[in-house]
Amino acid sequence: MTRPHHAARLTGFAALLLATSASAAPTAVDLAQAGDDPAWTITEDLTTEIGPRPAGSDREAAARRWAVDRLKAMGFANVREEAYPMPVWQRGEEDAWLTAPFLPQKLAIAALGNSGSTGPKGMEADVAYFGGYDALVAAPDSAVKGKIVFIDNQMKAAQDGSGYGYYGRGRFAGPNVAAKKGALAIVIRSIGTDNHRIAHTGVTNFEDGVKPIPAGAISTPDADQLARQWARANGRPLRMKLLLTPQLAGKQASGNVIAEVPGSDPASSPVILACHLDSWDQGTGAIDDATGCGIITAAAKHVMAAGQPRRTIRLLWAGAEEVGGFGGQAYFDAHGKEKHAVAIESDFGADRIWRVDFKLPDSAKGLTDRISAALAPFGITRSKNPASGGTDIGALVAAGTPVIDLQQDGTRYFDIHHTPDDTLDKVDPAQLRQNVIGWTATLAILANSSDSELP
Amino acid sequence: MTRPHHAARLTGFAALLLATSASAAPTAVDLAQAGDDPAWTITEDLTTEIGPRPAGSDREAAARRWAVDRLKAMGFANVREEAYPMPVWQRGEEDAWLTAPFLPQKLAIAALGNSGSTGPKGMEADVAYFGGYDALVAAPDSAVKGKIVFIDNQMKAAQDGSGYGYYGRGRFAGPNVAAKKGALAIVIRSIGTDNHRIAHTGVTNFEDGVKPIPAGAISTPDADQLARQWARANGRPLRMKLLLTPQLAGKQASGNVIAEVPGSDPASSPVILACHLDSWDQGTGAIDDATGCGIITAAAKHVMAAGQPRRTIRLLWAGAEEVGGFGGQAYFDAHGKEKHAVAIESDFGADRIWRVDFKLPDSAKGLTDRISAALAPFGITRSKNPASGGTDIGALVAAGTPVIDLQQDGTRYFDIHHTPDDTLDKVDPAQLRQNVIGWTATLAILANSSDSELP
Repeated sequence: MTRPHHAARLTGFAALLLATSASAAPTAVDLAQAGDDPAWTITEDLTTEIGPRPAGSDREAAARRWAVDRLKAMGFANVREEAYPMPVWQRGEEDAWLTAPFLPQKLAIAALGNSGSTGPKGMEADVAYFGGYDALVAAPDSAVKGKIVFIDNQMKAAQDGSGYGYYGRGRFAGPNVAAKKGALAIVIRSIGTDNHRIAHTGVTNFEDGVKPIPAGAISTPDADQLARQWARANGRPLRMKLLLTPQLAGKQASGNVIAEVPGSDPASSPVILACHLDSWDQGTGAIDDATGCGIITAAAKHVMAAGQPRRTIRLLWAGAEEVGGFGGQAYFDAHGKEKHAVAIESDFGADRIWRVDFKLPDSAKGLTDRISAALAPFGITRSKNPASGGTDIGALVAAGTPVIDLQQDGTRYFDIHHTPDDTLDKVDPAQLRQNVIGWTATLAILANSSDSELP
Repeated sequence: MTRPHHAARLTGFAALLLATSASAAPTAVDLAQAGDDPAWTITEDLTTEIGPRPAGSDREAAARRWAVDRLKAMGFANVREEAYPMPVWQRGEEDAWLTAPFLPQKLAIAALGNSGSTGPKGMEADVAYFGGYDALVAAPDSAVKGKIVFIDNQMKAAQDGSGYGYYGRGRFAGPNVAAKKGALAIVIRSIGTDNHRIAHTGVTNFEDGVKPIPAGAISTPDADQLARQWARANGRPLRMKLLLTPQLAGKQASGNVIAEVPGSDPASSPVILACHLDSWDQGTGAIDDATGCGIITAAAKHVMAAGQPRRTIRLLWAGAEEVGGFGGQAYFDAHGKEKHAVAIESDFGADRIWRVDFKLPDSAKGLTDRISAALAPFGITRSKNPASGGTDIGALVAAGTPVIDLQQDGTRYFDIHHTPDDTLDKVDPAQLRQNVIGWTATLAILANSSDSELP
């Protein structure tokens, strides 16, 4: 659905703010509440003009050039690409049908990242049905050998996205288990919470020495259909025809885009904010993760506009996250020995931030209280859960960098995640703006924190 | 999403009803409220075991055989197929891309019924953008000639589905207008109210003597994207690559399935209830129109179970509705000279009935009051709008047969209509049951009405 441009709707409020604040200079949060809306324009422009940008592709390279131009135009310093090589997997043809014992019915399918190929002629085989990942693990090889494994467990929506880890095992690990047991191929119910005829892709991995088998996900209505046919086949084989022809394209160039707001105290360690620029290939990567790049960049821009911060703010638009976290690892390989004051990542859509988690040194107790107090007016409450970050800052966090999580509402995130449906219309401008305000409030405090609080 | 089987949930209530009603024989409405749920089982079984059933195809023939078996097994009389020939259009390959002035982006597209073909090599041309059907009609031929026309108006949801007629003109009539103006092809924003990457197909028609051009619909997020690219192309051509290879398969056999509950008074004119058995080819035709057949059949079954009605009840499962109403016309050609007391059709999904419209002779005033009173407890209110029926009974109504419309809530109908998403999970068992109850209450009165009320 077409939405009105959000910035236009705020003109009145911006004018009011400027009138009432009179001589006092606006704070970064004032600017985030009233100013222009770079989070929206970054998201709209990137998804419209570049669209899908699989890591290691020419499209990702075009997106990097676009990002460098945009970040320079916004006034950031030290804007640059940092290249690295990465192995590239490319989607091919995709087609799947249930062929017996009922009339043939087409399934909406997407290959999983790192899936093997059926070859151009495809395959047809009996389905071996498993209610969930654990049932596959428990099955004898004889139940699987020469068959197309199907894993059928329905992910449930949760505000904190906590179903992903449990239900996601069917995708993360199921193909490797099926391959080791001698399956011809594996098809899973999408790791998703919607009920549309759109499949959810995502990466899987095979152990060294395990030959990748064809691996795909079908939409939840198709999985329902398969399960019903399985239940009423009454011992007759349920047959599936499968064509998946992805290929490995060897090592290709990817790259991170870096930009900075230089701090007034160059001896101080920087604050690093991360998102990822790459996306899956079937949507335009709006909520995953154009909005993340929009949010962190808008926050940095508002803090910059309110006056030079004490610490340097560094933006990391990671070039490759979806297919293995190569961007975050490359950043760590290049910069892991530098001291970072704190890392924050935005990669869970653009619905409102509802909770803040911390994992900071004891010296930061007062800082934690100040941030929590600043976020509370925007509906964001402090939790006792330790922050953990995400893939793009994973290596930094593992090496001991302090981290904060501004937790977004994930209730509808997995309706859209890794599907062709990840498009601009799924972004709610009002919730996107709340993200920017929350990030700006947090960043304004962090970027001006003392070295005794965050060394 | 998998739903619990609805019948199971009503066991307790059924038991209670049978206990409390004691010696009094249950009415048809009692049975509809408490008994088994043939509307659900018909819908589930037909969509699971047959699935898509395009009119005139082998699949529709299989569905007819399935229907005959099922209706006989349910105890209906005079169950039979009535065959007729019809022209058949078959979907081919479908692919569409925006290719310039930005990076190529794939569009989710579906050919419209009766679309012409691009040929196997496809075509690439400039897009001529129109904000709506009227703008296309007003345009000079020179604005269209040699281009791919795009019509972009966003249908709005309405409880009574009233946007379909207005916005639908882009589909019903747009291709013919574009062809006459010299367009190479036409692509429209889907006539739908969702925002998923799934296109809404549907039939279009070209006037005699107008050569059909390729005609497709793209999903609403894709239409948004096209509109954004058009707006920022700044005079550079917006280019589209289009491949649609449908073909005409000549005249093929289709057929209506008829079943009856014989009335105790054979001299009385029958009540005819209609649905359609065919479906579009990309979904499983759950809400369009397996549920319609389930609803009318369940109502007839409950009335039959409560005791033989005075009038014969005739069920018409029309074999071809989607692509031109050939089933309803064939029924009229065969039976139009017979007197029908009243006709009712169910072909607007399975969400709750909220309104009842009548178009009955003056002699039926008391009957209208009795039906309205019987429906009110179930949240169905009487309107002053005249009933008009639908395609399957259209010829009968045009010839003067009295008609009643049990209007279903169409708010979400056009989210799903004519898409791959028309699958069982979209049916709400509770609302489906309310339909059956409303139909049963209406039918029990109609089938026992006097000849002085309905001649």
